[in-house]
Amino acid sequence: MITKLTSTQSDFQEKLASLLAWDNVSNKEVAQTVDDIIANVRNSGDSALIDYTNKFDGVNASSMKDLTIKLPALKQAFDALNKKQKSALTIAADRIRLYHEKQKQSTWNYTEDDSTMLGQKITPLDHVGLYVPGGKAAYPSSVLMNAIPAKVADVESLIMVVPTPNGISNPLVLAAAYISGITQVFTVGGAQAIAALAYGTKTIPKVDKIVGPGNIYVATAKRAVFGQVGIDMIAGPSEILIICDGKTNPDWIAMDLFSQAEHDEDAQSILLCPDSNFINQVEISIKKLLPTMDRQAIIKIALKERGALIQTQDMNEAITLSNQIAPEHLELSVEDPQILLDNIKHAGAIFMGRHTCESLGDYCAGPNHVLPTSGTARFSSPLGVYDFQKKSSLIMVSRQGANTLGKVAAILADGEGLQAHAQSAKYRISH
Amino acid sequence: MITKLTSTQSDFQEKLASLLAWDNVSNKEVAQTVDDIIANVRNSGDSALIDYTNKFDGVNASSMKDLTIKLPALKQAFDALNKKQKSALTIAADRIRLYHEKQKQSTWNYTEDDSTMLGQKITPLDHVGLYVPGGKAAYPSSVLMNAIPAKVADVESLIMVVPTPNGISNPLVLAAAYISGITQVFTVGGAQAIAALAYGTKTIPKVDKIVGPGNIYVATAKRAVFGQVGIDMIAGPSEILIICDGKTNPDWIAMDLFSQAEHDEDAQSILLCPDSNFINQVEISIKKLLPTMDRQAIIKIALKERGALIQTQDMNEAITLSNQIAPEHLELSVEDPQILLDNIKHAGAIFMGRHTCESLGDYCAGPNHVLPTSGTARFSSPLGVYDFQKKSSLIMVSRQGANTLGKVAAILADGEGLQAHAQSAKYRISH
Repeated sequence: MITKLTSTQSDFQEKLASLLAWDNVSNKEVAQTVDDIIANVRNSGDSALIDYTNKFDGVNASSMKDLTIKLPALKQAFDALNKKQKSALTIAADRIRLYHEKQKQSTWNYTEDDSTMLGQKITPLDHVGLYVPGGKAAYPSSVLMNAIPAKVADVESLIMVVPTPNGISNPLVLAAAYISGITQVFTVGGAQAIAALAYGTKTIPKVDKIVGPGNIYVATAKRAVFGQVGIDMIAGPSEILIICDGKTNPDWIAMDLFSQAEHDEDAQSILLCPDSNFINQVEISIKKLLPTMDRQAIIKIALKERGALIQTQDMNEAITLSNQIAPEHLELSVEDPQILLDNIKHAGAIFMGRHTCESLGDYCAGPNHVLPTSGTARFSSPLGVYDFQKKSSLIMVSRQGANTLGKVAAILADGEGLQAHAQSAKYRISH
Repeated sequence: MITKLTSTQSDFQEKLASLLAWDNVSNKEVAQTVDDIIANVRNSGDSALIDYTNKFDGVNASSMKDLTIKLPALKQAFDALNKKQKSALTIAADRIRLYHEKQKQSTWNYTEDDSTMLGQKITPLDHVGLYVPGGKAAYPSSVLMNAIPAKVADVESLIMVVPTPNGISNPLVLAAAYISGITQVFTVGGAQAIAALAYGTKTIPKVDKIVGPGNIYVATAKRAVFGQVGIDMIAGPSEILIICDGKTNPDWIAMDLFSQAEHDEDAQSILLCPDSNFINQVEISIKKLLPTMDRQAIIKIALKERGALIQTQDMNEAITLSNQIAPEHLELSVEDPQILLDNIKHAGAIFMGRHTCESLGDYCAGPNHVLPTSGTARFSSPLGVYDFQKKSSLIMVSRQGANTLGKVAAILADGEGLQAHAQSAKYRISH
């Protein structure tokens, strides 16, 4: 049902490595298809986009008008929600906005004794494209999490693309687009939508950056247009790592493992705990609760293929293993999570204490749920306002500063054999 | 010699687009070679690395020991510099360090009324790989600019790779590595060095991120390993855009254009100025000064193929065009650059005032010289300390907070059909 390991078994590191293994490298056949789609959309614009959409999404569009959702339709979708949903979506959006406002960076500068000024100017991106998957993985929370940081950064326009397979759109997604302040919506998807956003068509504006999750075609297309536009990280399957001291209700831990596993068959749920007896209790809870779950088929495969209950020697070793894994979601289900925090080096988000289950953070605590997966927390960060702002260095050298800096620059430029660099600096030396 | 355009000519936008055109898309043949090299280094580690290095760099290494430079050799290289060079390198390093210290981010958090704590923990990357090109483009300043921000971020280890074609190493590069605090140096390069850093070999440690410039093989390899490790931007040719009011010494402007053009034949130098008479004077200065330049052959091709002197209607239009171009380096050669600054939206670095030539910033003003090229300043930033720090979200929901947030999360999770997410939240609701 789920792999059980102990950190002291001789083949532990090998077993762990094989559990964690996830090759992000894209399939060659997919890459070729995607390259063709991008080339066609670059060449034929809207008409290629319409053809692909009719073909892949089973719709019957004759013009881009048929693939456009006007803004009033978003408001209508929101207004049509029941009161509870409307309130939940609004509370979540407000909390996400509040948290992300703390991430906003500001222009700074300082002036040296000789009046030379140095600094950094912060500006928002102009145009951002937001990819929202259609079908089963169409999550309104994902719209909030991708769009709100961009709005907080003061991005001018936010273009959402969302495929509507067989013409079916998700009212919660449209409602979320409404309260996030999306500026335009097109019902296109796949590599063709990414190509349209990256290069622009007559109807779809060219954007500066594309964010949002998608299937392998979308991910491969994002990788291909990287450089032409900015992109967020290319996400692998979602994962949770729970460190528990053995004193949380085992049903809670089992359900937290399920909440990751229910995403899809590749999702990963791992528990680290020094208490073998508690691990057995969690296993019993898993067996007991699994039959009650709507998505038990998915959960079962995910737990069997990629899940694990791991007995560690102590809590310190659990932290060491967590740093090795660099999990997307790290739950510290312990009495005093603060004392563990200093030693945690790599994690997308850290859920602290028995009452902080991951799903609170997924929806409404405030921090972003777009997080680095597959160990990429070693070098990357949650999606944030900083992904929608950029920096320009400011350098204003005074007449006096040019004397001192000019001499230094000239020596270094000459050392690199760059005479024009040196001469350009020397011109500014006045004595 | 250099293209002259006026913004009012009917084909101006077309001409400008063709000047700016730069396709970053990688060559298929190169991509295949790079894929093979990466696969071989992943499979055979050091031995593949030694074979490729012997073959491509014309050396005769029999073990990785022959491809390792020990730290004392870096200090020796620094000690052997002349006094002026030692001082210039030290001043530059100190100024770069001082500026970058202002970029360092800190952990923050806030506590809500119900004792729920939210925040963001900042940690440095553990291991960073720094690629330094060998041969003609081996720039010590590039070592400072890539390494110092990583050191300021408190990166634990900084692994430098630098090919030594025919066994020749550059003492200035080694000296720069010394004062930057590089922790290990290997004399390997190309796609094989990138593969070794991304996947690790017996001798070369696996890193978390790879930064630094390189040729098309290096750039293609970086793109291929992106996701396995972090990478910095993939740089196109370097460019300068100068906005001048027509009152700077035209020789200065000509030399500033040269200082970009001398990098390589693809480098781009553009002047925007409303004064046609001044543009003619700059053209005369170019003709006069070009024969005095060591690298006149390169400058001549770069100016002819990709350079331009553009007459604008006024300074406002110059700013508008600059925002459209989103230059890597923007020089505001005017009396009062501050009044233009507010309207500048996209630029890697802004050099303000007649005394601030780009080369001061290239070497020693303090800000980074690794900047977004080819219009990518629309969505990306100079290399900085933030590239070597990462963020983890902190979420510690109180018992009371779990009541309110749990209800919101459960409604949204149910709306997305994620029952385990909902149940996990519901468990935490205590009344």
